[in-house]
Amino acid sequence: MSSPTIKLNSGHEMPQVGFGLWKVDNANCADIVYNAIKVGYRLFDGACDYGNEKEAGEGVRRAIKDGLCTRSDLFIVSKLWNSFHDPERVAPICKKQLEDWGLDYFDLYVIHFPISLKYVDPSVRYPPGWSDEDDKVTPGKATLESTYHAMEDLVDQGLTRSIGVSNYGGALMLDLLRYARIRPATLQIEHHPYLVQQNLLDLCKAEGIAVTAYSSFGPQSFRDLGMELGNNTPLLFDHPTIKKVAEKHGKTPAQVLLRWATQRGLAVIPKSASQDRLKQNLDNVSFDLGEEEVREISGLDKKLRFNDPLNVSNGAAHPLWNDS
Amino acid sequence: MSSPTIKLNSGHEMPQVGFGLWKVDNANCADIVYNAIKVGYRLFDGACDYGNEKEAGEGVRRAIKDGLCTRSDLFIVSKLWNSFHDPERVAPICKKQLEDWGLDYFDLYVIHFPISLKYVDPSVRYPPGWSDEDDKVTPGKATLESTYHAMEDLVDQGLTRSIGVSNYGGALMLDLLRYARIRPATLQIEHHPYLVQQNLLDLCKAEGIAVTAYSSFGPQSFRDLGMELGNNTPLLFDHPTIKKVAEKHGKTPAQVLLRWATQRGLAVIPKSASQDRLKQNLDNVSFDLGEEEVREISGLDKKLRFNDPLNVSNGAAHPLWNDS
Repeated sequence: MSSPTIKLNSGHEMPQVGFGLWKVDNANCADIVYNAIKVGYRLFDGACDYGNEKEAGEGVRRAIKDGLCTRSDLFIVSKLWNSFHDPERVAPICKKQLEDWGLDYFDLYVIHFPISLKYVDPSVRYPPGWSDEDDKVTPGKATLESTYHAMEDLVDQGLTRSIGVSNYGGALMLDLLRYARIRPATLQIEHHPYLVQQNLLDLCKAEGIAVTAYSSFGPQSFRDLGMELGNNTPLLFDHPTIKKVAEKHGKTPAQVLLRWATQRGLAVIPKSASQDRLKQNLDNVSFDLGEEEVREISGLDKKLRFNDPLNVSNGAAHPLWNDS
Repeated sequence: MSSPTIKLNSGHEMPQVGFGLWKVDNANCADIVYNAIKVGYRLFDGACDYGNEKEAGEGVRRAIKDGLCTRSDLFIVSKLWNSFHDPERVAPICKKQLEDWGLDYFDLYVIHFPISLKYVDPSVRYPPGWSDEDDKVTPGKATLESTYHAMEDLVDQGLTRSIGVSNYGGALMLDLLRYARIRPATLQIEHHPYLVQQNLLDLCKAEGIAVTAYSSFGPQSFRDLGMELGNNTPLLFDHPTIKKVAEKHGKTPAQVLLRWATQRGLAVIPKSASQDRLKQNLDNVSFDLGEEEVREISGLDKKLRFNDPLNVSNGAAHPLWNDS
């Protein structure tokens, strides 16, 4: 089993279905990555902030050693955390992250949030999260343009093949497209039937930027975190529309949610610790929703965002989105 | 009758209640401005795009000539249109706008939208609106930072005393605060009980940036334009909550809507062609809403935005906001 790919504007091919490493716990991470490769996953979406890059790298190395795949079969994604936005911090932290993975290049390296925070030395706390060395949320001084140019330098240095951004809205994308020397290959955003963002997707399509959806299942991931908004929002898995479509096609609600995204051209990065669900998720592209079904699911939009710095107690000075 | 003032971070005082020149027709504009000054208005909020700066200036000059006020009593606001974002276009167009007004400085000059469009020569079409000389919406090449630095230069040159931005969301404000040499004195945004944006207001308060609300009456202005969304949204003037509060205080719904904003610290810029309503609007600060009333009105929030480039047929490539 394998995933179709999306041709990025950088010329590289990116698997459309990948595995997201957010909240994958350190104890099982290497095994989960190994097993995901065995099932057929080739894209792994990591980040400094997930705190499991060493373990993910261990899983990758074991899979390569066992002959399940080669490095060039894989598409490894990582992200620049907020506290490393100062241009002179970008290459050093990217190199540290590569070292953690045991790799000499990323396939895609992404600005995690359009938020510059004060530098925290990795020897003090890693990953640093939202707080500085004095446990306060302190703004950094880097502009988004200066950080982005440092990301472009990573491509020149061969540390990553493509670059992208995450959690940027339309207004930031418009500005980015005016200062980018190397265009962003991807935008990664929270995206599910409660947060459809058709206008932003249309902009990215027109500009040739691939979009990767995270939190494709909506509230589920945020219930796991104990977030009140997650607890108070009915699960998409239980939504009558999703269940109806799933039953009609003989698929799981998770497969319908992923297929709704992939059929609209997005890449997805679900995770699962279960081998069966890993397979089902990867297999979401094996059936097609009807146009009317796609429209009906898009009609569930509530402009409801879970992964908002304002929903994190110490990110409260960062109103990134007007829909929150 | 006069307005209280807000002390800007530039050191200048800005009237909290002003007169907005959007949609004031050319034939009556000079008289309306003159009459507004007579009633006690001192702030006039204009823009290249409103197409009436010459006539507004005529009203101002007549009022000064008749001894109703002096230039230094007035606070004249204008805005940089999208097609003049290229840094080298900023001072020339500002000077042309000053000439139209018959002034030698603005009190506040504001970036109208965070959208750079291709330059249109004023001799070809003025104001140019959204389309270029070939009647297409063509992106410009200026980054927001480069335009903002040209705005800062206007302050150095004495062409404006303060600078600000309009239609910026939180993410753009955070970036702006990192590249600004001269901090923005104000942010002007659409703001009414259907679009409360408390998080953005909190950011501006924390950063010492005054916020000016436009379209304080919500759908009303957009019905005048024949906009479907305006027609389909019940008027705030008729909303039971607004009517109830207005009756309790013996004020008009318009006064309640303005007071709700001014009591929360915002500046407002209503317009009216009627002398009575001009007075009522200016007089909105003469009574206080109870805390519970302010909360109740804020509770009407629908995250409903009318002035969105996406609602203008030829601005469709510009998804500035995720709430639209």
